[in-house]
Amino acid sequence: MIRAYAAKQPRGRFELIEYDPGPLKSDDIEIAVESCGLCHSDLSLLDDEWGMSEYPLVPGHEVVGTVTGVGREVTHLKPGDKVGVGWFSRSCLVCDQCMDGDHNMCPDAEQIAVGRYGGFADKVRVQASWANRLPDELDTRSAGPLFCGGITVFNPLVQFDVKPTDRVGVIGIGGLGHMALQFLSAWGCEVTAFTSTGAKADEARSFGAHRVVDSRDKDALKAEKGRYDFILSTVAVPLDWQRYFAALAPRGRLHTVGAVSEPFQVEAFTLIGGQKSLSGTPLGSPATIRKMLDFCARHGIAPQIEVMKMSEIDAAFDRLREGKPRYRIVLENDFR
Amino acid sequence: MIRAYAAKQPRGRFELIEYDPGPLKSDDIEIAVESCGLCHSDLSLLDDEWGMSEYPLVPGHEVVGTVTGVGREVTHLKPGDKVGVGWFSRSCLVCDQCMDGDHNMCPDAEQIAVGRYGGFADKVRVQASWANRLPDELDTRSAGPLFCGGITVFNPLVQFDVKPTDRVGVIGIGGLGHMALQFLSAWGCEVTAFTSTGAKADEARSFGAHRVVDSRDKDALKAEKGRYDFILSTVAVPLDWQRYFAALAPRGRLHTVGAVSEPFQVEAFTLIGGQKSLSGTPLGSPATIRKMLDFCARHGIAPQIEVMKMSEIDAAFDRLREGKPRYRIVLENDFR
Repeated sequence: MIRAYAAKQPRGRFELIEYDPGPLKSDDIEIAVESCGLCHSDLSLLDDEWGMSEYPLVPGHEVVGTVTGVGREVTHLKPGDKVGVGWFSRSCLVCDQCMDGDHNMCPDAEQIAVGRYGGFADKVRVQASWANRLPDELDTRSAGPLFCGGITVFNPLVQFDVKPTDRVGVIGIGGLGHMALQFLSAWGCEVTAFTSTGAKADEARSFGAHRVVDSRDKDALKAEKGRYDFILSTVAVPLDWQRYFAALAPRGRLHTVGAVSEPFQVEAFTLIGGQKSLSGTPLGSPATIRKMLDFCARHGIAPQIEVMKMSEIDAAFDRLREGKPRYRIVLENDFR
Repeated sequence: MIRAYAAKQPRGRFELIEYDPGPLKSDDIEIAVESCGLCHSDLSLLDDEWGMSEYPLVPGHEVVGTVTGVGREVTHLKPGDKVGVGWFSRSCLVCDQCMDGDHNMCPDAEQIAVGRYGGFADKVRVQASWANRLPDELDTRSAGPLFCGGITVFNPLVQFDVKPTDRVGVIGIGGLGHMALQFLSAWGCEVTAFTSTGAKADEARSFGAHRVVDSRDKDALKAEKGRYDFILSTVAVPLDWQRYFAALAPRGRLHTVGAVSEPFQVEAFTLIGGQKSLSGTPLGSPATIRKMLDFCARHGIAPQIEVMKMSEIDAAFDRLREGKPRYRIVLENDFR
């Protein structure tokens, strides 16, 4: 049996449940969860913000743990391996996307906490393809948030070929943004943090930002005109996107990983004149996750975390709802 | 003196004027105009639709002619050369964009019919960098429209690396679209024409479309879900863009070269889920124009034109305003 923290209704409190995962599938592994990061998407799931939550809901999709069992087809992992798992727990492996290395865009991809139970639990099972071994150099405790928040902001750099000579802006210095700054700094870019929270300026610099721009200051934004090759937005609220498009250099791209509630609006001429793009990406494929883990190991990149106990899950969600974490909460397993 | 057809006010009729171009600049060439294509942008300029027209207005930016004079710094063209010229007539050659081969995005780029006199004239002068020699294989009379309409739809294929294995849709089968179909067919792609004009279906196939979809038929559009790697929109009117985003495959791009009057609206999730992009491009650089001319010569690509006399310029603009040309009007010089 697997024990897990479940909410029985939208915005509900968590209670312990037990469920029987059945026999281990031939391509699955079972992981003893050591810790699981708390992501804003968990809160969106809890509140059924996207209309796809199923209750009892067991969120949690930034899992780090130890392999305790492997299905009979699994060849690349063995019991005792330290692995991490993120938003996806299975893909078909045979569609065009999977065959092309884009498992993250498999139309049948299974999401770990949608229609099944996620990582705020003592154990969790996933298809072995979606578990990645942690490099020895990585700190186990802080690695969890790499598997959702981290890969979410690392993936666009790979997909859209961000170059070390690029000038890059990051909008929103939170759970995702503070990792994006670290990645981009190690990537070799000129890195600018756009934040509405003055108190984060120094920390943004400590994460690798060369420049910090107050995103509430219209004149400051205006002065950035034509500067950026790439602007990565991590926020979920609508901003004055027109100003950010204006801040793009020719060939520039405004890229969102934030599930903004209102549609982007953009004039054709804004795109045409300077060959500009607007785009988005989901989390990355297993191969891109491996690249990210290697990159983190090589450059000493780690999420800045606050550690709480898994039994404090309600307090942790409350803290996240209030926007307090600096910058990511990780819940350590304290079952039994 | 140069003789040209000028409108004295928005929507005005044309009359002959004479102007003194002064001494030939050291990096300019003078061209005896043989013909000049009539583009929808000429109509937008005539009507001052973009608020940037200056009167007397001499439009015309799809020029083909013979070099009659070269400035003292010009080394790659000589009197007697057959050349073509498009929307741009000069760029600074020293900014980042010019130095990078993106002369078409030079912030100081001069537009041939904005603040100066364009191609509906017996002669026209441009910076030599912006004139390209016509390959011998090209039909001189029909080549003009390549220099605006043609390069406008060729440029995105180069800039966004459209692949011969891609499935590509073209929205709007007019002056631009009918050239896009020819380019994409020769490019090796699966080509689909989206048109609201049933009568154009057979012609679209003759230009290289493998498939034709009635863009007014919502069910037909819906059935295209997830099909396209690239959708090129050549129209200037707002459509139900959401359906076209839905028609994109993962990694797909909706690209506009049409100056749509209303902003595009797109949800973050639409972009994020399938790593989709929205983008635009201006006309291409001189080097991309050369690639296009070579490509046209190799594949026998030519605009389908209706020939009128330059003295019939008013009638030609009327015909364009009524949307009648199949697919591009070219005005032949009949001065003297």
